[in-house]
Amino acid sequence: MNIVRIGQAAFYVTDLAASRHFYVDLLGLNVLHEDNRTLYLRGVEDREWTLKLEIAPKAGVRHIGYKVASDQVLDELVTLALEQKLPYRWEEEQDRPKMLRMQDPFGFPITFYYQSVRHKWLLQSYHLHRGPGIQRIDHNNVLTPEVGAMTKWYMDYLGFRLSEYSEDDAHRMWAAWIQRRGSVHDLAMTNGTGPRLHHLAYWLPDGARIAQLCDILAGDRQFAAIERGPGRHGISNAYYLYVRDPDGHRIELYTSDYLTVDPDFEPIRWHVDDPTRQQLWGGIAPRSWFTEGSVVEAFGGGFEGQRESELKGMPAYVA
Amino acid sequence: MNIVRIGQAAFYVTDLAASRHFYVDLLGLNVLHEDNRTLYLRGVEDREWTLKLEIAPKAGVRHIGYKVASDQVLDELVTLALEQKLPYRWEEEQDRPKMLRMQDPFGFPITFYYQSVRHKWLLQSYHLHRGPGIQRIDHNNVLTPEVGAMTKWYMDYLGFRLSEYSEDDAHRMWAAWIQRRGSVHDLAMTNGTGPRLHHLAYWLPDGARIAQLCDILAGDRQFAAIERGPGRHGISNAYYLYVRDPDGHRIELYTSDYLTVDPDFEPIRWHVDDPTRQQLWGGIAPRSWFTEGSVVEAFGGGFEGQRESELKGMPAYVA
Amino acid sequence: MNIVRIGQAAFYVTDLAASRHFYVDLLGLNVLHEDNRTLYLRGVEDREWTLKLEIAPKAGVRHIGYKVASDQVLDELVTLALEQKLPYRWEEEQDRPKMLRMQDPFGFPITFYYQSVRHKWLLQSYHLHRGPGIQRIDHNNVLTPEVGAMTKWYMDYLGFRLSEYSEDDAHRMWAAWIQRRGSVHDLAMTNGTGPRLHHLAYWLPDGARIAQLCDILAGDRQFAAIERGPGRHGISNAYYLYVRDPDGHRIELYTSDYLTVDPDFEPIRWHVDDPTRQQLWGGIAPRSWFTEGSVVEAFGGGFEGQRESELKGMPAYVA
Amino acid sequence: MNIVRIGQAAFYVTDLAASRHFYVDLLGLNVLHEDNRTLYLRGVEDREWTLKLEIAPKAGVRHIGYKVASDQVLDELVTLALEQKLPYRWEEEQDRPKMLRMQDPFGFPITFYYQSVRHKWLLQSYHLHRGPGIQRIDHNNVLTPEVGAMTKWYMDYLGFRLSEYSEDDAHRMWAAWIQRRGSVHDLAMTNGTGPRLHHLAYWLPDGARIAQLCDILAGDRQFAAIERGPGRHGISNAYYLYVRDPDGHRIELYTSDYLTVDPDFEPIRWHVDDPTRQQLWGGIAPRSWFTEGSVVEAFGGGFEGQRESELKGMPAYVA
Repeated sequence: MNIVRIGQAAFYVTDLAASRHFYVDLLGLNVLHEDNRTLYLRGVEDREWTLKLEIAPKAGVRHIGYKVASDQVLDELVTLALEQKLPYRWEEEQDRPKMLRMQDPFGFPITFYYQSVRHKWLLQSYHLHRGPGIQRIDHNNVLTPEVGAMTKWYMDYLGFRLSEYSEDDAHRMWAAWIQRRGSVHDLAMTNGTGPRLHHLAYWLPDGARIAQLCDILAGDRQFAAIERGPGRHGISNAYYLYVRDPDGHRIELYTSDYLTVDPDFEPIRWHVDDPTRQQLWGGIAPRSWFTEGSVVEAFGGGFEGQRESELKGMPAYVA
Repeated sequence: MNIVRIGQAAFYVTDLAASRHFYVDLLGLNVLHEDNRTLYLRGVEDREWTLKLEIAPKAGVRHIGYKVASDQVLDELVTLALEQKLPYRWEEEQDRPKMLRMQDPFGFPITFYYQSVRHKWLLQSYHLHRGPGIQRIDHNNVLTPEVGAMTKWYMDYLGFRLSEYSEDDAHRMWAAWIQRRGSVHDLAMTNGTGPRLHHLAYWLPDGARIAQLCDILAGDRQFAAIERGPGRHGISNAYYLYVRDPDGHRIELYTSDYLTVDPDFEPIRWHVDDPTRQQLWGGIAPRSWFTEGSVVEAFGGGFEGQRESELKGMPAYVA
Repeated sequence: MNIVRIGQAAFYVTDLAASRHFYVDLLGLNVLHEDNRTLYLRGVEDREWTLKLEIAPKAGVRHIGYKVASDQVLDELVTLALEQKLPYRWEEEQDRPKMLRMQDPFGFPITFYYQSVRHKWLLQSYHLHRGPGIQRIDHNNVLTPEVGAMTKWYMDYLGFRLSEYSEDDAHRMWAAWIQRRGSVHDLAMTNGTGPRLHHLAYWLPDGARIAQLCDILAGDRQFAAIERGPGRHGISNAYYLYVRDPDGHRIELYTSDYLTVDPDFEPIRWHVDDPTRQQLWGGIAPRSWFTEGSVVEAFGGGFEGQRESELKGMPAYVA
Repeated sequence: MNIVRIGQAAFYVTDLAASRHFYVDLLGLNVLHEDNRTLYLRGVEDREWTLKLEIAPKAGVRHIGYKVASDQVLDELVTLALEQKLPYRWEEEQDRPKMLRMQDPFGFPITFYYQSVRHKWLLQSYHLHRGPGIQRIDHNNVLTPEVGAMTKWYMDYLGFRLSEYSEDDAHRMWAAWIQRRGSVHDLAMTNGTGPRLHHLAYWLPDGARIAQLCDILAGDRQFAAIERGPGRHGISNAYYLYVRDPDGHRIELYTSDYLTVDPDFEPIRWHVDDPTRQQLWGGIAPRSWFTEGSVVEAFGGGFEGQRESELKGMPAYVA
């Protein structure tokens, strides 16, 4: 099942002007298409749109999507859906003439596409970059009470490979990072009430650009938007920052991880109680980071109901 | 009273090998002189030693010192001490043939010197820089229950100039940043139980080097040493990190402030309740940063007793 | 003679729209005042305008100016002008109610002012910074056939202090860096046909921002604007980039030098043949950097005539 | 033919102590194994050695090597060698129990391996990083008079994919960048006298680290080692620096390119006369960069003879 990489996310937002100010004026994402109900955004390296914002009465995640290697892969995915009795349909979408939508067994609305209108990138148009110069979509991270089962399903049926994971002494998996494109992850699953999206991440060229975004948000007095960081993750080794958009959707600015292309790469195991797992430098983390997330759309409309996890616990370093 | 700049600090430490590992191996300060009881350190731009560590049964601050413009200034300082009945004496010190020590009216042991052995700097010997490449001594910050009076005394008698300050609605000063050399500060005073040293600060070339120090400390698993940051101060605009040495002495790594050389420079006022004062980006701060400091040596030996401040209060963002 | 620092420069430009694109859209300087004939610019830390562009039939430098410590210093400068029979006059200027203009003995039009309208700075309005975020005016560098005499005059009569200099085996001074505010220089003099301005320099927070400006200029396909660098100077230790505006005026982007506040600071001597003097890293330099400069306005109007230097020579590393 | 990525290079050097000083003390590569004749080096992310230095009477390249996906791929490569009558043999090598060596049709000695002893990486042992903290092997670039044919062969028989290329009006290919692991290149071919190695490249985390290496080399007065840069390539968009080791082997320090994982990625075409192709910022380049390279070992011993290219020409910006 040749899935190439994370490709897109679509968010419902309640105030498109406020979201535009946040994503375009402050984060510096670039507008590819817009009308009075939707906004299509991308980083300077993205040749396709990677984030769609759509006005709605209630905020949530419409879907998270992956680019696949050919239209034939879409047919294979339909076969999988039929075999596993997963709901699916073809959806119309800007720049994506053939987009398949499916509900995974864990309640997440996931989309797949191969064909996309490709636009001239902005990477070398440095005079047009704004703010921290966000470069490209990197990964998504979800909250689920079924980390172990969900990780296994994405590996078994969608061909994801495991990069890192955390588990307790009973070998119960608390979180997992899985990938398709040779980076640390296209998708991470974290234990928690779900199905919810924890965050969508964009890659930046270096850590100084991440600090610059903090300065920009502070300059605009958007202090509440800076939720956690900057810091260095133990897992993934990434330099990170988490910000919250006006609806509470969480965006990670991310850089400096490592390659996982080697076939003899051995997944890195972390004990769930290792404090350096999330924050290599130590330090206090806000409770919201562990408890809040974005609800996801149910296949038939509305949002998925939430289930709590049986794995309970909060790190000692939470404020 | 021509005081040039902050010039030195001398700390008592209880385990010189542990301190050497922290300051030399991890922070990357450079050794100018050492024996089995003392260590003289400097940044790569410093042409004189700027930090002395000395083994002692109890940790504390022996003195904080300023370089003055000539030996004649030392005589003027003696006159001041006599007029104000401040205890003073000449002390012998490595590389400082004529060093005056005085107790200021607020209990701080301060030293002054003009002459110093000047050593070849390391600034352009980049192949010898280690760790984050700490550049030069920048300032010291003390805790005192008498911020207003102490600020006035340093301005009136030692010629310091005010850069920034925080006050409450009753115009009581909670903190002040004062300077001699055209930077934001050589000395800052913060409201609190005192007299104690809050921190000694070194200048680094940029914020990426500050993040690098976090990585280095984490690599050596010195998580507890990283107390606060990295972040951007509202006051001073500096990019900062606070670390704690094995005895708890606090060191700030500091960069990116601004010039104050203009005679029509107007001191910047902050309301003490403004959360962006200390951390432009917002965020949670650890309680220790507000409550802990290093005791300072009394003129006759032992350490100064502590007095609490009448100004009580803790910011809302403290964990 | 209490001169505080370099304060301003005024350039004649031939196409104000082209200059505005270069300085505002690409370099990211900030507009304080503008009309259809003039543009007043500043960095994000500058509280006063620091660069004036004025439309004229021929490009050149109207004047270079210094901020002094009080209006009384202006009177002392008038006395100096009278004693030395230097032409002077009071000029009207935006934001500067009392500006003295003088012709120095070497043909340079220099201005002095104390009072200036002070504007709210942009330093902490990071959301308004554009491009590389140029921070503040740093220094000016002139070409003169009389480096030795000019250096002596500025030190003897205007109180400048020597930071670094280059000389040959016969102790003839080829270049000198002199300062008033405790940095490496407010003014540098380089041997060459003069009087001409070699460059005006602005301070940036770090070297990454200097590389960013190269990217921005390249994005706009302004390749010819990038004349030299980025690189590290031996002299001053600064990380630098030289760019040329549409009229050929040269701007240096500059960061990472050192402090010179110590009264026992010993000026650093470089042999004129030391290749690391200009470029610590070695490398090839373009000929234009050594031969081109901006003519300066004569006191009575028109531009000063040029005299060649008796000291002839070009470094081996010039292309 | 599942080739994973560039994996290794082996250089003959004439003075191992001089090479060790260059690669270990200055570049900061990390020693995995060493004896008095050989040195095995790696970056902090590399889990295997990536550069072998071996003492020899004459400097040159022993081989350049690729990691493949399994031992079975080695067998497929033997089949290819037999079909195409390419010389091959199994070689013994440290940490590589099964290494296949082959001479490609263009005279390059290439090695392939799957199994390798994996060592604990140093990525998160930041306290042990030295110098600029070189991260991982990135690519190799060769000089050949047969760019077009060689590119076709690596794409047809080894499964490489084209990222970027330069050609003239007659559609003759002057250079090509090809990849296996989703980066811009594992291998580049540049028109010139060959077969020779132009350079081996290592990835660094950001451009500031590349400038730091210039400072380190200058601090050690290794000015001649800095051949070209730092700068930004048009092709690959990488921020780069080229240095020369004591034998003249060229190493590129490289960062900030982009991903090529999309199956609908369209190779980027550059006209060979576009000056921004090599250096996005413009500027002068040294002649040596275009004319010098490392000879490569012939299959039977000694070094391959050199053939000139029929495509003649030198960019206008060469000094």
